[in-house]
Amino acid sequence: MTYDIAIIGAGPAGLSAALNSKIRNKSVILFGKDSEKLVKTKKIANYLGFKDITGSDLNKNFKNSIEGFEIKRDTRKVKTVYAMGDFFAIEIENEIEMVEARSVILASGIELKKDLQNEEKFFAKGVNYCATCDAALYRGKKVVVIGYNDESVAEANFTSEIVGSLVFVNMTGKAVSLNEGIDLIEGEIPMGFEGDERAEKLVFKSGREIKADGFFIEKDSSKAERLVPGIKMEENHILVGRDLSTSIKGLFAAGDITGKPYQIMKAVGEGQVAALGVASYLSKKN
Amino acid sequence: MTYDIAIIGAGPAGLSAALNSKIRNKSVILFGKDSEKLVKTKKIANYLGFKDITGSDLNKNFKNSIEGFEIKRDTRKVKTVYAMGDFFAIEIENEIEMVEARSVILASGIELKKDLQNEEKFFAKGVNYCATCDAALYRGKKVVVIGYNDESVAEANFTSEIVGSLVFVNMTGKAVSLNEGIDLIEGEIPMGFEGDERAEKLVFKSGREIKADGFFIEKDSSKAERLVPGIKMEENHILVGRDLSTSIKGLFAAGDITGKPYQIMKAVGEGQVAALGVASYLSKKN
Repeated sequence: MTYDIAIIGAGPAGLSAALNSKIRNKSVILFGKDSEKLVKTKKIANYLGFKDITGSDLNKNFKNSIEGFEIKRDTRKVKTVYAMGDFFAIEIENEIEMVEARSVILASGIELKKDLQNEEKFFAKGVNYCATCDAALYRGKKVVVIGYNDESVAEANFTSEIVGSLVFVNMTGKAVSLNEGIDLIEGEIPMGFEGDERAEKLVFKSGREIKADGFFIEKDSSKAERLVPGIKMEENHILVGRDLSTSIKGLFAAGDITGKPYQIMKAVGEGQVAALGVASYLSKKN
Repeated sequence: MTYDIAIIGAGPAGLSAALNSKIRNKSVILFGKDSEKLVKTKKIANYLGFKDITGSDLNKNFKNSIEGFEIKRDTRKVKTVYAMGDFFAIEIENEIEMVEARSVILASGIELKKDLQNEEKFFAKGVNYCATCDAALYRGKKVVVIGYNDESVAEANFTSEIVGSLVFVNMTGKAVSLNEGIDLIEGEIPMGFEGDERAEKLVFKSGREIKADGFFIEKDSSKAERLVPGIKMEENHILVGRDLSTSIKGLFAAGDITGKPYQIMKAVGEGQVAALGVASYLSKKN
């Protein structure tokens, strides 16, 4: 069958898109596993309607919201999305047969290449990717921000207002303008993390080490270009309009993949807007 | 005192903006009463994390999320927001003294002038303002859409896929392209609603009447221009960028006031993005 809407990604944006697509009576295939990023988050203080909920519980509540709706769930990995003019052909890793859909919502999040030693092992155990999202967890504590992009400077400045002390490891290749009180490390190359249960210190190539309570890696990724050949990007994110449409007709995007802030409410709001945009697109196509 | 952020409107967008502003450690004044539109909604099926919740309960959960944060709540009516260069002066109705803030988030929703007889009386009792939002309540039933703007045609087409039968009252002044099966009424002027507990029929100037289970009034408003002199609009809504910034520096907007879809998740997502945008603005200003 050809689905009305294929949603790629089952994190907050994808689940929201699925819910709103079903409320519009569309047939939906939802690709992706539960969001590891969400499930592993210890405490979420800024999802309106809940108070200090764990990511795992919030994910359960999200999934409960879509219970009872007929949604085809497919946990296989999407390799490429091809725009075929009037429909989309979705290629699955290691499969020959393609899945077809009349429209697509890309909600696959951002992929962060794990470059540093033990980065993956300590993910959500002292190592995180969005300082401003999780700064509240480190109130009064010491954190290190390893900044690879321009935005990481602003992120560090925000975060310094909340945490006890902050060290910025400048990997941007430029001079940076940091708030007073932030310690700056330049000319050192981070190698990896060490610790028992949690990341306890960052080790540099030079042998230098910094101990801290939390470590934030701030960098970009560009998964979207590989997933959808020819899609227009803007600074490592998919270029979208206010209606979350992309440069490809019938293909909408939502969530982290459309850019910062990498936040749950932003993602679910975009999932909703994208679903309603797609419904409108399909209705005009009829 | 001069607040860091003044938030105008305490509906979903405003509450979300308040929560995220506090997480960024900003001082906040929140203007507005609880959203009547939210509180009166009988059933919300598309707020991710809840399943078929009443608007009143969702509002309680929203308010619970901001409990414990120091937020100055002010239920007086904001008359005008003046951009003074480096800060904003907020004029309150019938007051001489102004409230000052370094930045503003406008989340005051859309104001719908109650033009028809008994429109206000039957609001949420058979009379609503967003067909596609509430269509699910009228599955299999008869609804009337009174359409004043171009978008009302698409709204009627969507809605017709869900409800039992639909009558479109064309007040757009143009020829409209409706889905098959929709009944079209043209050349009649709606006068008001009649009914006991709920709106039961729409009465026209000609004396003609239509009975239905639900009535949707689809039109625009332009409160924002009166509230913030000189702000740039786009088709009756505040013109915003992807970061929810407006044409006025330091003034951000979120929720229905930035345009359709008029939906709760879209509003909370925007409240979050606007708050983080304002925090970034304030941080650069320091």
